Amino acid sequence: MNHFYKFESKEIGQELLELATLYKANPTLHSSKGKGKRIGCIFLNPSLRTRVSTQIAAQQLGMEAIVLNMDKEGWALEMKDGALMNGSTVEHIKDAAGVLGSYFDILALRAFPTLTQKEEDISDFVFHQFVNYSGIPVISLESAIRHPLQSLADQLTIQELAQKEKKPKVVLTWGPHIKAIPHAVANSFAEWTLGMGHDLTICHPEGYELDPIFTPGALITTNQEEALEKADFVYVKNWSSYKDYGKILTTDSTWMLTEAHLKNAPQAKIMHCLPVRRNVEISDELLDGPRSLVQQQALNRIFAAQAVLSKLLP
Amino acid sequence: MNHFYKFESKEIGQELLELATLYKANPTLHSSKGKGKRIGCIFLNPSLRTRVSTQIAAQQLGMEAIVLNMDKEGWALEMKDGALMNGSTVEHIKDAAGVLGSYFDILALRAFPTLTQKEEDISDFVFHQFVNYSGIPVISLESAIRHPLQSLADQLTIQELAQKEKKPKVVLTWGPHIKAIPHAVANSFAEWTLGMGHDLTICHPEGYELDPIFTPGALITTNQEEALEKADFVYVKNWSSYKDYGKILTTDSTWMLTEAHLKNAPQAKIMHCLPVRRNVEISDELLDGPRSLVQQQALNRIFAAQAVLSKLLP
Amino acid sequence: MNHFYKFESKEIGQELLELATLYKANPTLHSSKGKGKRIGCIFLNPSLRTRVSTQIAAQQLGMEAIVLNMDKEGWALEMKDGALMNGSTVEHIKDAAGVLGSYFDILALRAFPTLTQKEEDISDFVFHQFVNYSGIPVISLESAIRHPLQSLADQLTIQELAQKEKKPKVVLTWGPHIKAIPHAVANSFAEWTLGMGHDLTICHPEGYELDPIFTPGALITTNQEEALEKADFVYVKNWSSYKDYGKILTTDSTWMLTEAHLKNAPQAKIMHCLPVRRNVEISDELLDGPRSLVQQQALNRIFAAQAVLSKLLP
Repeated sequence: MNHFYKFESKEIGQELLELATLYKANPTLHSSKGKGKRIGCIFLNPSLRTRVSTQIAAQQLGMEAIVLNMDKEGWALEMKDGALMNGSTVEHIKDAAGVLGSYFDILALRAFPTLTQKEEDISDFVFHQFVNYSGIPVISLESAIRHPLQSLADQLTIQELAQKEKKPKVVLTWGPHIKAIPHAVANSFAEWTLGMGHDLTICHPEGYELDPIFTPGALITTNQEEALEKADFVYVKNWSSYKDYGKILTTDSTWMLTEAHLKNAPQAKIMHCLPVRRNVEISDELLDGPRSLVQQQALNRIFAAQAVLSKLLP
Repeated sequence: MNHFYKFESKEIGQELLELATLYKANPTLHSSKGKGKRIGCIFLNPSLRTRVSTQIAAQQLGMEAIVLNMDKEGWALEMKDGALMNGSTVEHIKDAAGVLGSYFDILALRAFPTLTQKEEDISDFVFHQFVNYSGIPVISLESAIRHPLQSLADQLTIQELAQKEKKPKVVLTWGPHIKAIPHAVANSFAEWTLGMGHDLTICHPEGYELDPIFTPGALITTNQEEALEKADFVYVKNWSSYKDYGKILTTDSTWMLTEAHLKNAPQAKIMHCLPVRRNVEISDELLDGPRSLVQQQALNRIFAAQAVLSKLLP
Repeated sequence: MNHFYKFESKEIGQELLELATLYKANPTLHSSKGKGKRIGCIFLNPSLRTRVSTQIAAQQLGMEAIVLNMDKEGWALEMKDGALMNGSTVEHIKDAAGVLGSYFDILALRAFPTLTQKEEDISDFVFHQFVNYSGIPVISLESAIRHPLQSLADQLTIQELAQKEKKPKVVLTWGPHIKAIPHAVANSFAEWTLGMGHDLTICHPEGYELDPIFTPGALITTNQEEALEKADFVYVKNWSSYKDYGKILTTDSTWMLTEAHLKNAPQAKIMHCLPVRRNVEISDELLDGPRSLVQQQALNRIFAAQAVLSKLLP
């Protein structure tokens, strides 16, 4: 594993889950493993959990973390090779990534999709430009199409809660939202859940099919009621249309998850990556009730990041 | 003391002043007390002294400090319970504070008032939402109605300068300003000065009476000349009207403190929390002259924060 | 050397180059020299390399570095003494610099020129106000008229590449740009190159003469072709007019450096401080080819900053 931006294999997934479990029990177990090493965390977009959990994970391994809000503190980046830079971009990613690659031991990058340039987004263009030009290991802090640290934390949460004797029923259900939202969390959740060998049911309104490369083997339906039946884990997430790229096709509030939706799923725990639009995606009663795992997921972000950093350190 | 956001008691005030004095003499006295502990400093508004002095105080106790400019780097927060979040707020304080409470050992929060929603402001709504949902000790870095770290630094400054044999005359005088300014510094200064057993005279133009819960026992007058007579410490501060909430009733420049105003107060030292509008609130001659304590107050912010952190650490 | 904002002498230059070379070979050679010391890095303008390299340099000396984006996180600063502050500025530099001087052991400041107020800019007004009022050593992270940490890194790069037996021909050539750009990098490069005893040729279109105080002894010409002949090091940089202050007199693209421009300079290495406007100032072929030293210059920023910090530490 040279970089961390996607699901690699069940073996690596299990290894990372074991490491994360270890660090959750003993955060300072390897507190000098990263001594003298530096991680640069580059944000092209806002962040709360990702920003803080990555810094904490680095500190717990003894690394120095430097955060750079490139959009606000640095220079507007040109992403296209060969560009004649007489517009609003001030620095080419080639130069910036090269410099950062010489300053740090590991880089981490958050770069959201455009949601207007489909080809560019699905090639995960910005992330790969950073990888290409930095020359050092790069961790995705959410790219155009994946959010793998979130997914690793989510798998850790499922593993912590799943009953040993029974294969859990995992459901990913679309929830309404007022803005056009990236596919990254949904894609990654599907990719990791399936990759780790779980059954996965995905439900969404018509026209919201995810890119099929992330969902091989999933049961996909537009019938939310059937999908939720006897669910053990219900992951709620909005995403915009992939087919009609970046568009909002519906905000149908009947898709908002409430206690009533789970009448046939008495054991169901609910999950969300946060930030969540309360009473739009999920009702308060669920988020504040005993079914909610959202805080546990958020806490697990620290140990997911720590496991990945630990594995990438020489 | 589970949190630090108001004056608690004279005993705790004295204990904190003793700790602050100790740290001023020996900043690294307890340099490993906070080892392995983390403070998260959350800013919803700008800050210079508070931001830096809190980081330094944490470092001097061996703590890790992580600063988060929530307004710029994170997500716009929804504060109201039960809100249907289909507007501009992206994350509920309930979720954000819960996550931060699980990431840190101590939180610190700056949250200014609206100056338009009086009931919400005086309930110190945002600060208490953070307290309610974070589940860990929270330090106020200035809330809607109080700025207690400033007040502790101010009391330290008064203690350092006051003559042993004589009870000092402390005066809080309103100064002009071009913007509507919160009541937090004035409220807290009155609360702490009175709480620590000092006499306090407050003078301001008509209509600028502070919320009386902060000023029990103070001598309150609209006659600045009489108020300043024989003063030992003159604290200058603007605030907007409390009665006619958040309004500017006057910018009368005769209230600006100058050397001439202190003709009957030869011993008077002048104080201000900074930032100060020079030649609007106070004249250059005073700020640059031997009466000024403003730099000493600012330096004492480090030791005030260090004392509070030290007391909150387990 | 009490501050670091300009070329002081060849002796000090050589001493800093030796220190920088030492730290490049062994970054943690003096990893406890700065223990217990703090540097405050104050940015009034954006920064990538300067921000990160200074933090890394400080860490490698064991110092604590605190970064403050004063323009975004703090208060708008008033620079003029005696100002009646009833406008948009919230805090006087006198007060802010005084406080920061009491909080830190060393300060570092980035403050770009106005490019409209020539007299103010060339007096390096903002930088000197910080020096005047902070009372502690101040390092320039690029001021209105100089960028000395860049120049020290540039001299290190030239020293690393120059052949021992032959005096190198160093050329500073103006390159086109679409915005009005400060003179700081060009001024400093000339000042340091000449100060360290190198020959320097400067070429630019008519009307782009630099302030002559930075270029004593340089060969100055408007003939780029002649200037580049047999060059060993070609530093490309845009700057706006000094005579017609802050104006763009031409964007003539024939001045953009390409491989064709170096047909009579087979040994020439090219240099740029970054960020560079690709295919506007310099062609991709040069920046991506074997002549380019831009990444080496950027890496050397760490060791230049480390040398300066080391020398300023008591």
